[in-house]
Amino acid sequence: MSLNPADERLARVLPQGVLREVSAAYLDEPRGRYVGRAGLVAAPRDLDEVAAVVRACAAARVAVVPRGGGTGLVAGAVMPDGPAPLILSLERMAVVRAVYPDEGVLVAEAGGTLQSVRDAAAAVGLQFPLSLASQGTAQIGGVLATNAGGVNVLRHGNARALCLGIEAVLPDGTPVHDLRRLRKDNTGYAIRDLLIGAEGTLGIITAASLVLAPLPAETGCAVMAVESPEAALRLLSLAQARMAGGVTAFELIGGQGLRFLAEVLPDIRQPFPDPPDWSVLIEIGLPAGLSAGTALEGLFEAAAESGLVSDGVIAQSGAQAAGFWAMREHIPDANRRIGAIASHDISLPLTEIAGFISAAGDWLAAQEDMRVNCFGHLGDGNLHYNLFPAAGRRREEYDDRRADLSRHLHQMVVDRGGSFSAEHGVGRLKVADLARWGDSGRLGAMRAIKAALDPAGIMNPGAVLG
Amino acid sequence: MSLNPADERLARVLPQGVLREVSAAYLDEPRGRYVGRAGLVAAPRDLDEVAAVVRACAAARVAVVPRGGGTGLVAGAVMPDGPAPLILSLERMAVVRAVYPDEGVLVAEAGGTLQSVRDAAAAVGLQFPLSLASQGTAQIGGVLATNAGGVNVLRHGNARALCLGIEAVLPDGTPVHDLRRLRKDNTGYAIRDLLIGAEGTLGIITAASLVLAPLPAETGCAVMAVESPEAALRLLSLAQARMAGGVTAFELIGGQGLRFLAEVLPDIRQPFPDPPDWSVLIEIGLPAGLSAGTALEGLFEAAAESGLVSDGVIAQSGAQAAGFWAMREHIPDANRRIGAIASHDISLPLTEIAGFISAAGDWLAAQEDMRVNCFGHLGDGNLHYNLFPAAGRRREEYDDRRADLSRHLHQMVVDRGGSFSAEHGVGRLKVADLARWGDSGRLGAMRAIKAALDPAGIMNPGAVLG
Repeated sequence: MSLNPADERLARVLPQGVLREVSAAYLDEPRGRYVGRAGLVAAPRDLDEVAAVVRACAAARVAVVPRGGGTGLVAGAVMPDGPAPLILSLERMAVVRAVYPDEGVLVAEAGGTLQSVRDAAAAVGLQFPLSLASQGTAQIGGVLATNAGGVNVLRHGNARALCLGIEAVLPDGTPVHDLRRLRKDNTGYAIRDLLIGAEGTLGIITAASLVLAPLPAETGCAVMAVESPEAALRLLSLAQARMAGGVTAFELIGGQGLRFLAEVLPDIRQPFPDPPDWSVLIEIGLPAGLSAGTALEGLFEAAAESGLVSDGVIAQSGAQAAGFWAMREHIPDANRRIGAIASHDISLPLTEIAGFISAAGDWLAAQEDMRVNCFGHLGDGNLHYNLFPAAGRRREEYDDRRADLSRHLHQMVVDRGGSFSAEHGVGRLKVADLARWGDSGRLGAMRAIKAALDPAGIMNPGAVLG
Repeated sequence: MSLNPADERLARVLPQGVLREVSAAYLDEPRGRYVGRAGLVAAPRDLDEVAAVVRACAAARVAVVPRGGGTGLVAGAVMPDGPAPLILSLERMAVVRAVYPDEGVLVAEAGGTLQSVRDAAAAVGLQFPLSLASQGTAQIGGVLATNAGGVNVLRHGNARALCLGIEAVLPDGTPVHDLRRLRKDNTGYAIRDLLIGAEGTLGIITAASLVLAPLPAETGCAVMAVESPEAALRLLSLAQARMAGGVTAFELIGGQGLRFLAEVLPDIRQPFPDPPDWSVLIEIGLPAGLSAGTALEGLFEAAAESGLVSDGVIAQSGAQAAGFWAMREHIPDANRRIGAIASHDISLPLTEIAGFISAAGDWLAAQEDMRVNCFGHLGDGNLHYNLFPAAGRRREEYDDRRADLSRHLHQMVVDRGGSFSAEHGVGRLKVADLARWGDSGRLGAMRAIKAALDPAGIMNPGAVLG
């Protein structure tokens, strides 16, 4: 390894054995739009080593970019500009430190994958109710740093709602020991909630105590074809009222996504022979004594009576339910193979969704010939609204329109009280969006907090506040 | 009104008509241990007026003490020492600005009572699932500033979990417009979560968008006598597993509280002729198609088979359920009439509760002749652990032991990973406790944030960080 003199000086004061070879795996991001840089890669083995690395970087004024599984979609973990940073990988802190089945709590280190935490919960008959398509790679530290969402937010909340306590290192190297296993603890400011969602700009989460939930006695899954997004929302209300909070996922699926699937991933089975323009995937969890199948049949019948649904398939087995989910979770994969012009991770007040989809569709149709794939976590008001080239055209043909289209769509979202980043975060990709649309009072408070906790500006510079 | 010259100067630059007469109602707190002071009382009518008042106070270096319903139990809203502050009452901002039944969202001003918000939700067939004995007086702003808990945290979370957005004024008078109605919004730091629970030391919440939940189709309520706190916890696990998250409240009631009730509030009906040493009040909410009565009977039978319960009464009507709740909610009232030596609002990891109750009881018995009333929100690990004089003795006889007893009990809690303030907050009462037991890294971050957002130190000085 040949280092520049500054990195060599820094390397000499780091704990023994923390350095790793700088390699491409530490510098990429899934969409390939950014290429990160690194002077050093450090993979500390415990809290003390993380603190020592951060202290050394603070003293040397070297930027620290925390790295989890690298699955983030807004370039929060890759720093393409400026003096090459130290990449701090949590890969060696991947242990589930303790499981407390009788408390419904688990303490995990930040570098473990989301899947490993879900497995540890399942091993004691419980669930960690946060689920992402990337869970085999995404790490808990990144899940918390980005306040990840996924498909069960409707019932169980975002990552923030599932975290009881954290262990962390602040930008000056000070450790925070706050790994509590308490449901209630009103002893001062929500430092935990502040670090969650700060995308590594206010410190590094090294471990967390996480909430586990009981597995419902009865679970069920169905896909139903609906007339429109509005009908989907009315179906959701109906389901919520009938299931008493037992709706655990409610995913909207646009027909374009199913057509993409059929085109590029024909082995993925689809429940309807002709992809409906709009369908929903519903998952429910019920107490003992109720049949999930009967509940879903009852929901379908009531919805059909109200004209909300035109067709439906209720999973008759776990395998069939898994098949429905495979269809849903392969949509992003199909999107990648088709190649999006632009992607938007937006949220809206529930009553604004149908109007937005209609208005945005009209506006786009007047702009340019293209295809729209709109899908997402309808129960949370969270849509992935992605634009694709018209059949036979290449994405490069839209290069000069991309920024404009996204900006206009985001403006339509913001005008309706929505967010330009529902679950992916700000990272580096959406810094300008935050500066444009963030409330100035809130942004001022954010800047004051960043300056107070990280006066040297070493923690993940360029992310969130730019 | 005769003012000192400094207050007179300040009064002249405040918006017209915001001042109110200084009166005892703005200076008291429920336990009567602190007497607040005030140079001026201002009751602004809108966000702009709140901002103007705070700006004027910041310029004049006059402290601002925000005042809600005045029901807090840790003296967060009374400032007994130092130069007399301006009390900023939210009483004139008490409107529910909007209700969105189809979104399950309501936007309320901070000065409305919790009851008024609950009523507005009920008027559209929904619930605001935060319930406190003081809800007729407690105001939403105070509920959020203290991250209040209450009896439904088990199912719906603390106040923080029920707030989607806030409108607020920062310590320099800058307004924050962040009244979102979004379930997912990852666009920067959790300023909302930081102001929630900061007890008015980082700014003033003027309005909030709040989550409404569907009313369960079926609700039920029971009291069951249990052998011990440990049996109560096993009963809770059993109930959670059977109800799939449908347990909405699970309150532990110690026999001493029931005996106090019988003594000082004999009109409050009790379900058991002889108060059991330990009993629980269970409330459940279930989907349509299940009978709550049948579910509670099934739970009781399964629990009896396992030897967890010895007696039980299932409410046969809403009136009977209300009677059970009246019993539970009058326990604090009975406590006040008896007169506590010391009260403790503690939380523990669930598996530490039984051991703590046993060890604390043994330790106290060896110290002094007294009575212990232990009750609380067992599902959240939150106990109210209060000490009372032995029969025939007066609380004054314990004056020289009070601080010592509390400190030792809190130390036992902290040693078990628990909190010395589960739901009441820090206020002024527990400043020394936070300084003693708070993690130093976390306290450092809190101080840095306080200094960054409130460099003049005018917002509720003396609370939380002292």
